[in-house]
Amino acid sequence: MARKGEQVRTIPAEALDDIARGAALLGTGGGGDPYIGKLMAQHAIRRFGSVSLLDPLELADDDLVAPTAMMGAPTVMVEKVPRGAEIVTAFKELESYLGRPIRATMSCEAGGLNSTTPFSVAAELGIPLVDADMMGRAFPELQMCMPSLFGVSATPMAIADEKGNSAVINTVSNHWTETMARTLTIDMGCSAMIAIYPMTGKQVKETCVLNTITLLEHIGRTLREANAAHQDPVTTVTRALNGHVIWRGKVQDVARRTETGFARGEATIRGVDAFDGRDLTVSFQNEFLVAQDGDHVLATTPDLISMLDAETGEPITTEGLRYGFRVAVVALPCDIRWRSDAGLRLVGPGYFGYDIPYVPIEERVSA
Amino acid sequence: MARKGEQVRTIPAEALDDIARGAALLGTGGGGDPYIGKLMAQHAIRRFGSVSLLDPLELADDDLVAPTAMMGAPTVMVEKVPRGAEIVTAFKELESYLGRPIRATMSCEAGGLNSTTPFSVAAELGIPLVDADMMGRAFPELQMCMPSLFGVSATPMAIADEKGNSAVINTVSNHWTETMARTLTIDMGCSAMIAIYPMTGKQVKETCVLNTITLLEHIGRTLREANAAHQDPVTTVTRALNGHVIWRGKVQDVARRTETGFARGEATIRGVDAFDGRDLTVSFQNEFLVAQDGDHVLATTPDLISMLDAETGEPITTEGLRYGFRVAVVALPCDIRWRSDAGLRLVGPGYFGYDIPYVPIEERVSA
Repeated sequence: MARKGEQVRTIPAEALDDIARGAALLGTGGGGDPYIGKLMAQHAIRRFGSVSLLDPLELADDDLVAPTAMMGAPTVMVEKVPRGAEIVTAFKELESYLGRPIRATMSCEAGGLNSTTPFSVAAELGIPLVDADMMGRAFPELQMCMPSLFGVSATPMAIADEKGNSAVINTVSNHWTETMARTLTIDMGCSAMIAIYPMTGKQVKETCVLNTITLLEHIGRTLREANAAHQDPVTTVTRALNGHVIWRGKVQDVARRTETGFARGEATIRGVDAFDGRDLTVSFQNEFLVAQDGDHVLATTPDLISMLDAETGEPITTEGLRYGFRVAVVALPCDIRWRSDAGLRLVGPGYFGYDIPYVPIEERVSA
Repeated sequence: MARKGEQVRTIPAEALDDIARGAALLGTGGGGDPYIGKLMAQHAIRRFGSVSLLDPLELADDDLVAPTAMMGAPTVMVEKVPRGAEIVTAFKELESYLGRPIRATMSCEAGGLNSTTPFSVAAELGIPLVDADMMGRAFPELQMCMPSLFGVSATPMAIADEKGNSAVINTVSNHWTETMARTLTIDMGCSAMIAIYPMTGKQVKETCVLNTITLLEHIGRTLREANAAHQDPVTTVTRALNGHVIWRGKVQDVARRTETGFARGEATIRGVDAFDGRDLTVSFQNEFLVAQDGDHVLATTPDLISMLDAETGEPITTEGLRYGFRVAVVALPCDIRWRSDAGLRLVGPGYFGYDIPYVPIEERVSA
């Protein structure tokens, strides 16, 4: 429950449309299908009541917060839709392990399914959802959270599946958390629910990306209103996010494989208009990571690369990509903390195996 | 600590020689190298004091007992000797998760390394070791414990590695425990320490194999005394265990591979004396499972198949087998509860992929 005088606002089921659309854009193709996250959240809100969104600055320094999420390959999640009960199981397992009440939950990622999965926990347990996340986008591995940069441990974490299996993990590093939770996720059928990075209110305020849900709602509303006003949604939303349209074209080919619990692959976008006669290759590991026109790099992780429907601006996930789609590829600057040396070691192109230096998107487009 | 008037006896470090030799025999080639288990146990006893062996019938019905063990591929354990501290970590993690004191520990297996690994926990924590185990031999998977036949859950269980990583697992079946703990063990470097099957004293008395450590000591003493008295140790110990010498020969070939966390392979034993001119093939997955002379099956799991040095009767583990060793292969009847339909589904030849009916060893040798 919210405390007296606190900044909370209520999120009704209807608001999830805008939020999920915003989440699809910041999901950079990954983070799971936001449509599923939206359905789960709306179902939970209709059943248990609307969710209180809590301004992170209202958290007491010693409040306990635990982000919740779905873990696994988005290609699998599309077919194996979670029941919602198992995310509450994971949250309660963690709370019981910690031995004291967790005051609120939070999104792990700003993008995709996982921006809205915590709504299920908040609605069912009647606890607030903190308006923040740990990435400011979506990333494929558990250690790739901003709190890692500030020494916050991802464990104890809890993981649960729909069959009733669960585990509480303690590790010596957040990379080990990823290793152990990933193999358990594969055992559990390539998707599982987690409660992770238990943090104090102070740690949330100091190490997370703030006001995420509000931003997502704003993005979704911008797209919706631009469509209604017959303005170009792609240009409108890109400008609103201080980003750049780096490509326009038609999806020529998508190579996908599910490897070690991830959806990996490459999409080829044949250029139109100013990009006519050239092919853009966008590589992904759950999320879009690198956009290249031959040897010319247009954008790389940790900056955000998103694929939007050329007409409606509707974001397209890696698993939704199909031959013939007309798309605009947009690149958005990431949270500045990812651009530090430690940030780039965790989520830069080198970590994902690309021998490409990171250059901020603003510099790449003006070069 | 033992309670007033209880049947306990003290196991000094010197007694471990006999116990480990008995464990090697009942280990049927697997369960890890008893030499390493012995060194760990002796080290713990010298450092923390001798271990009190508790008669299982002295357990109160509501006493809490948790067996402890090492999990992984014996081929790896030989090179990655555990420090001993991580088994106490696993035990304490489980105790803290259960939220009440565990009165005693116990061996998971009668065979190999794991008959003696719990000595480390008992010595360091000053708790009794229950004179019992869950198999009456060694088996390669966690669900293959007698309590499984009586509906006892393997979880909550705790697993820990030498780096400081740990997890507490809850599963919907003991097969799921095996699946999840096995992949974590592989993550942890193919060996880990576990505390598992938390049970009441009543469950220990009703579902476990009793007086295991005493039997192991008796086996070891029988071998030692037969050698000292220049009697044939192989015949003496086989007779004492109501078993049968099914082959004598020379190790011709050993094919080994480490697969999915197990040591698998086949040993070929070229016959001598009465077995001259024929080859025995013994297949193993950590333990020896099937002994065949061409199409003629001589013995199968769950009966025990052990390989002994032809002269000294010293048991030989699968990883210790070498070309040229002169060996006797002995088969011993398993605990009668493994011969039930449920028992054979869990540990019979069919489970391990052999299309061979189980026939008790007494019937095979008299056929």
